[in-house]
Amino acid sequence: MTRVGFIGLGIMGGPMAVNLVRAGFEVTGHNRTPSKADRLVRAGGRAAGSVAEAVTGTDVVLTMLPDSPDVRGVVLGEDGVLAHAREGALLVDCSTIRPDVARELAEAAAERGLAMVDAPVSGGEQGAVEGTLSIMAGGTAEAFDAARPVLDAVGATVIHVGPAGAGQTVKAANQLILAGTLELIAEALVFLEAHGLDTETAFRVLAGGMAGSTALDRKGPAMRAREFTPGFRVALHHKDLGIALTAAREAGVVIPLGAAVAQLMAALDAQGHGGLDHSALVQLVARLSGRE
Amino acid sequence: MTRVGFIGLGIMGGPMAVNLVRAGFEVTGHNRTPSKADRLVRAGGRAAGSVAEAVTGTDVVLTMLPDSPDVRGVVLGEDGVLAHAREGALLVDCSTIRPDVARELAEAAAERGLAMVDAPVSGGEQGAVEGTLSIMAGGTAEAFDAARPVLDAVGATVIHVGPAGAGQTVKAANQLILAGTLELIAEALVFLEAHGLDTETAFRVLAGGMAGSTALDRKGPAMRAREFTPGFRVALHHKDLGIALTAAREAGVVIPLGAAVAQLMAALDAQGHGGLDHSALVQLVARLSGRE
Amino acid sequence: MTRVGFIGLGIMGGPMAVNLVRAGFEVTGHNRTPSKADRLVRAGGRAAGSVAEAVTGTDVVLTMLPDSPDVRGVVLGEDGVLAHAREGALLVDCSTIRPDVARELAEAAAERGLAMVDAPVSGGEQGAVEGTLSIMAGGTAEAFDAARPVLDAVGATVIHVGPAGAGQTVKAANQLILAGTLELIAEALVFLEAHGLDTETAFRVLAGGMAGSTALDRKGPAMRAREFTPGFRVALHHKDLGIALTAAREAGVVIPLGAAVAQLMAALDAQGHGGLDHSALVQLVARLSGRE
Amino acid sequence: MTRVGFIGLGIMGGPMAVNLVRAGFEVTGHNRTPSKADRLVRAGGRAAGSVAEAVTGTDVVLTMLPDSPDVRGVVLGEDGVLAHAREGALLVDCSTIRPDVARELAEAAAERGLAMVDAPVSGGEQGAVEGTLSIMAGGTAEAFDAARPVLDAVGATVIHVGPAGAGQTVKAANQLILAGTLELIAEALVFLEAHGLDTETAFRVLAGGMAGSTALDRKGPAMRAREFTPGFRVALHHKDLGIALTAAREAGVVIPLGAAVAQLMAALDAQGHGGLDHSALVQLVARLSGRE
Repeated sequence: MTRVGFIGLGIMGGPMAVNLVRAGFEVTGHNRTPSKADRLVRAGGRAAGSVAEAVTGTDVVLTMLPDSPDVRGVVLGEDGVLAHAREGALLVDCSTIRPDVARELAEAAAERGLAMVDAPVSGGEQGAVEGTLSIMAGGTAEAFDAARPVLDAVGATVIHVGPAGAGQTVKAANQLILAGTLELIAEALVFLEAHGLDTETAFRVLAGGMAGSTALDRKGPAMRAREFTPGFRVALHHKDLGIALTAAREAGVVIPLGAAVAQLMAALDAQGHGGLDHSALVQLVARLSGRE
Repeated sequence: MTRVGFIGLGIMGGPMAVNLVRAGFEVTGHNRTPSKADRLVRAGGRAAGSVAEAVTGTDVVLTMLPDSPDVRGVVLGEDGVLAHAREGALLVDCSTIRPDVARELAEAAAERGLAMVDAPVSGGEQGAVEGTLSIMAGGTAEAFDAARPVLDAVGATVIHVGPAGAGQTVKAANQLILAGTLELIAEALVFLEAHGLDTETAFRVLAGGMAGSTALDRKGPAMRAREFTPGFRVALHHKDLGIALTAAREAGVVIPLGAAVAQLMAALDAQGHGGLDHSALVQLVARLSGRE
Repeated sequence: MTRVGFIGLGIMGGPMAVNLVRAGFEVTGHNRTPSKADRLVRAGGRAAGSVAEAVTGTDVVLTMLPDSPDVRGVVLGEDGVLAHAREGALLVDCSTIRPDVARELAEAAAERGLAMVDAPVSGGEQGAVEGTLSIMAGGTAEAFDAARPVLDAVGATVIHVGPAGAGQTVKAANQLILAGTLELIAEALVFLEAHGLDTETAFRVLAGGMAGSTALDRKGPAMRAREFTPGFRVALHHKDLGIALTAAREAGVVIPLGAAVAQLMAALDAQGHGGLDHSALVQLVARLSGRE
Repeated sequence: MTRVGFIGLGIMGGPMAVNLVRAGFEVTGHNRTPSKADRLVRAGGRAAGSVAEAVTGTDVVLTMLPDSPDVRGVVLGEDGVLAHAREGALLVDCSTIRPDVARELAEAAAERGLAMVDAPVSGGEQGAVEGTLSIMAGGTAEAFDAARPVLDAVGATVIHVGPAGAGQTVKAANQLILAGTLELIAEALVFLEAHGLDTETAFRVLAGGMAGSTALDRKGPAMRAREFTPGFRVALHHKDLGIALTAAREAGVVIPLGAAVAQLMAALDAQGHGGLDHSALVQLVARLSGRE
């Protein structure tokens, strides 16, 4: 039975670790807030008091952390993954971080004799719970093949998109599309409300036509109800859009809608709503329109 | 057998009329360019040389025309629908026009003893051919019930969204979301190309996650291939966004992304690409980025 | 001594009428709210109880009204200007209205034997009080020459920019630039505040370089102080941007920044701030940034 | 006579160094392309073959370089300013760089016993030639006082805006306003051209009203003539907007227009027009509108 050290048991990481247990992996999880490990323990996994403890002796180390500095700290830090994982172990980072940091970490891992895959995910809390995440993996073919069983246990669409960092590049594109789609739904929703329409009915017909999307299916009802429990937090999506904008700028790609929605997500974050689900964009549109 | 007079046999109207024949309706079609009726005739319908001829004696008149002035002309004109349709007939307008014009026409029809439903559609050419359109209908409950059999023959999702004009309001929301979604896909695509990724693979994983959409499924391959045969023409989507912007302004709703994508669609149109499929937004993004 | 009938004695029209008196014109003013005429009367003009009374027997009729329907009503209405002005009189409209309405009114006036000049102004309340407005006049050369003495009495820069309607087209360009400039100053101001800088000092150096503008000189201090007494009201600038957007769309001109700032002005208006000075854009930016 | 070592003799630095000579300073200049020093030598200055040579023994070192890495390299590099300047010398950086880099360099200078002022400039090539630049200086009061005579020799508005880095923060605000203003002028210009107006006349009246600006005065004629010899290059303004966007993001400030114009400047740069004057935004707008 493959042993997995799992670092980061939040909204996404928590249910992913549970799905690994259910798939037969021996999972030892660690989180800075120890109580976050309870769900994993109840499911049959173990809790570790430190990164070192979670990582020592495992075959696979999976990280699911908020941002580039977190992953860099956990992987490269004095008491971190590379200091304690055994040679030949596989490092799978499911966090959403900067592509260049993903490449830097893959190189550092290789120097220590570990393979690494950047494997950010899409699908939200629901996808994490159901094990139906879409996973965009970057790394060598060998590393991807090695990571495959673990990724299949948490995702439904698991695709090798290119070399180290490529997973993060595709994820940046994902976050750009997703933020924009949520904002478009938000604008359409406030527009329909302002015209006095039954938005439940209207969303049903929109979902059936060319305006249909996964975001509309999954977030539409909560947006209509103004229910913004995360889910995926504004603060993280704001961070992700910063990554996408930087990557677009470096590549000389013009993204007018991406840049516009990044300002709106930044507004939500600046207004203190970083802890809300990103579908709170509808609240911003409604307030801009003097309706809330 | 219900007799239908069908005005407007273009990219959308043509296959819709054929589907009505297949569903057992007796269809007489008219188009300003007569050759457009050939497909209908081959399918078992009849061609009429004028609106008057198409409309006289039918139970249902269905119009599928480019813009508000076209519909107003055909319905209210001297030799138009209201001048020739029998009292008690039902008028179904599947065009995308201004909500206020839809209401005006419904009133004019009512004065002549005809019921009217505004029933714009979404789903593109593919939806029209397959009979799987999403239809957002506005009008009285009685008028909608009367229109139902006709609409079911051309659509898969047929929903009564409110009183006269409401169908057009929902359609405006649909066009706002759709234009924005296409542009987001375009920006993501050029971004992925610039980073040297295999975009077929990348789109597959994006489609499986939260960035998935009907537009990505249906238009993604053509956008990757830069294949812009319509489909739905830029000029029409440009016109539709004008309707949406005006309706948003009148309702005091702020739509920053809608306004931004309207400028990009306007650019495509101004550059002489009004006849391309609206997915040509990707060409605009690529050119803005100096890549084509 | 030339007799002038002056319709519309608001923030702009009031001081303009006074300046006409000071320049030696015999001015009879009318406003829907009669008390607005007090200032004119104190300056030596006369108040009229109706448009008809203000207009009858005058050589020049000057209108300064909020929007296209107001001007059309006053000019074409049953008891309006064209019904009561004498043949050969000159009509000067200083309102900001749609270019096509300006052309329509000029034609209607010509049919009644009156010349007309569209002569919208820029310069704000301060320019109106000081008689230093910038005036962009459209009409025939003869009409402009006839209007010249009146316009010179209220403006410092009086320029004939083209045929009927041309004044309004240039004014639309003016309003586009001005709204955008105010918004840029607003963004820069909140940016400087957030970085803890002395904004009085910073604005002084900005004013001396390439970022300097009349808007920065005139509105900068009030924006720093968050003092939004009009001046020029948000509701009117919102209306004007609607004119500019429509005129750009009709001409196939892409105005991404114009469209973006129009959404922000629309937000201010929708939020109930239509009565504030348009420099209140800084309040919107500060609130979007969670700072107020 | 104060001795000045001047590093960077380009479009801006070249005439600035000449103005220092004229004001009585003893100037030794260095540029990577040696021929750029010819103008300085003709004016009475000296050319140095290396940074070390230019800097050794001088009282003031002035740098005018393209970007943060250039300044960091020249100041901190092995054969750089801090390695060769005498203790007690004053370092004045007139480049536009990241505020955090400016602070880092000021600290490094202090450790070596040198004071530093960040003193970015605004006013364009014309301002550099005429010695009428607007200069926004950051640093201690003592350092600013020491730098004052040098700055007065090249600028007309010389203002101490705050501690180290503050000059760069104000400059970022300047570049945000300036880029946006140029784009607004560009949109208005194409709008006026499309409506068939005489743009020379129209710009004259716009300049006299609330839409007037230094950018309109200085760049308007070249924009009308589509004459894009720099002046200030697109590539540099693109770089500067990246600095402004990052600084806004870090401070949680929402800048929708700044973000929008940054995309347009990025487009010009990506299209290979980085070497044109930034007023080439009008070419982009005209092409977007299908007019060129």
